[in-house]
Amino acid sequence: MEFIEAYQSAYLRFADAQLWDKTPLNLYHPIHYITEAAGKRIRPVLTLMACEAFSKEYNQALPFSYAVEIFHNFTLMHDDIMDHAEKRRGLPSAHIQYGLPQAILSGDVMMIYAFTYLLNIENKEMANIAARFFSEIAIGVCEGQQLDMDFESQAQVSIDDYIQMITLKNIGIAFQIHDDILDVFGEVNKTGKKHAGDIINSKKTYLYLKSLELCTPEQREKLIRYYTSESVDIHEKIEYVTGIYKELAVLEYANLLKEAYLQLGKSHLQSLSVDNQVITNLEKLADYLIERDY
Amino acid sequence: MEFIEAYQSAYLRFADAQLWDKTPLNLYHPIHYITEAAGKRIRPVLTLMACEAFSKEYNQALPFSYAVEIFHNFTLMHDDIMDHAEKRRGLPSAHIQYGLPQAILSGDVMMIYAFTYLLNIENKEMANIAARFFSEIAIGVCEGQQLDMDFESQAQVSIDDYIQMITLKNIGIAFQIHDDILDVFGEVNKTGKKHAGDIINSKKTYLYLKSLELCTPEQREKLIRYYTSESVDIHEKIEYVTGIYKELAVLEYANLLKEAYLQLGKSHLQSLSVDNQVITNLEKLADYLIERDY
Repeated sequence: MEFIEAYQSAYLRFADAQLWDKTPLNLYHPIHYITEAAGKRIRPVLTLMACEAFSKEYNQALPFSYAVEIFHNFTLMHDDIMDHAEKRRGLPSAHIQYGLPQAILSGDVMMIYAFTYLLNIENKEMANIAARFFSEIAIGVCEGQQLDMDFESQAQVSIDDYIQMITLKNIGIAFQIHDDILDVFGEVNKTGKKHAGDIINSKKTYLYLKSLELCTPEQREKLIRYYTSESVDIHEKIEYVTGIYKELAVLEYANLLKEAYLQLGKSHLQSLSVDNQVITNLEKLADYLIERDY
Repeated sequence: MEFIEAYQSAYLRFADAQLWDKTPLNLYHPIHYITEAAGKRIRPVLTLMACEAFSKEYNQALPFSYAVEIFHNFTLMHDDIMDHAEKRRGLPSAHIQYGLPQAILSGDVMMIYAFTYLLNIENKEMANIAARFFSEIAIGVCEGQQLDMDFESQAQVSIDDYIQMITLKNIGIAFQIHDDILDVFGEVNKTGKKHAGDIINSKKTYLYLKSLELCTPEQREKLIRYYTSESVDIHEKIEYVTGIYKELAVLEYANLLKEAYLQLGKSHLQSLSVDNQVITNLEKLADYLIERDY
């Protein structure tokens, strides 16, 4: 990960200089909690790399990278409530740690701060363009989260619907498919999340939707029953669903689709007339994110 | 209310032209629900009047007035969750009607739309100034809501603390004191809220804090017990607390303080060198809001 260390350091220097130990303490402490526990800071790093691709001065993008990370952490704080996720990065989720009302309110103020960081950069023309673009994307993220929630109770969800949802909601399509795989086949101590949380919450992931496509009518009836019944034993549910995934080899299909989107992303990168070293680093980062040969 | 009808109509024409019947339907329907049920549109009217005080062209402020109202409705949607308020303007609160996750998410997207409306006005310099000012105020609203929640579990809350909280959180100090009065002494079918919701939720309102100041040691012990005990019967609590309020005549103190803040607000208005008719109308509006001689 050497190639992203410089960006990470620049970002962390900027982030550490932002003070969240202000009053009211209860409002700001959860922000400190969730941003401190953060992982690889992929989104801010991507923001800085994107800036560098077009101009050498990536430091000017630091407030943007911080806005993106604050916004991302706001979505995590609220999504964890909506998804009943009790753990995040190996720690209790904010609403478990601080209570539901607190996680709502601290999340709200984080979103406002994301805009504040964008709006306060020196070049006001750029600030406006960035804030308007940001608000469009932010609306898309909410729409994606809505589709995600809608799918839970929706009988028919196609793989196209699913791709539309993750495109709105996430930084990368390949990355989200990878995330779906990790939920079932990843190591818990690496993901920091609860094992098979998607199965427990009956999330219509790629693995589930592809299984519905490939299974026999008998398997289909049983799979849907396990996914929709309220009274089913959780351990039995995880065991059955994981068994079906293995039997139908949906992991292979998922890896193929992930690979296809990765290549598509790389071809978009190659079509840009920008600094070659940055492109190479962005490709490396993409490979790293989906744990492919890195 | 003739003097605000023109502003209300201009606002409603603008608001009705904004379409919330877009997809995903589940995301946008709660926005339609809460904004439709809205009352007198005081905040947008105030925005338009403020604009008119400095320039005759108040129509240019319509996107701002809409942003303010959307933001206000976002805070209502999330506050009702935090405050366990099951009714709003006589209807079920959004989280009761649509469920908790939905009210969180629809509230989130409303806040983003508030910024979107500000950022998209034609004069980009003004857009930036307005959005930055707006984000400052919005942070203050969250800080005020935090203080409000903190006070619930805080043993010592002074009347100064209380005034600081409502100053951050609300459009008017006199108006909030009036609101505290209505909670206990208002007519339910006029307020559209649950009777004595503040007492039920052990809110440290002006009436409660003033009572603590005026009561005997015996009353104090009993009042605090009613306010902090989890096991107390709700009806008994309401009856006892209302009884103390009456005995100590805190309603009179509340009305005096409300009147003092009203006069302070009016003297600020008088010190502005702006159109006199608008000032007169703003004064009328203030009187109307606290139901004084109007």
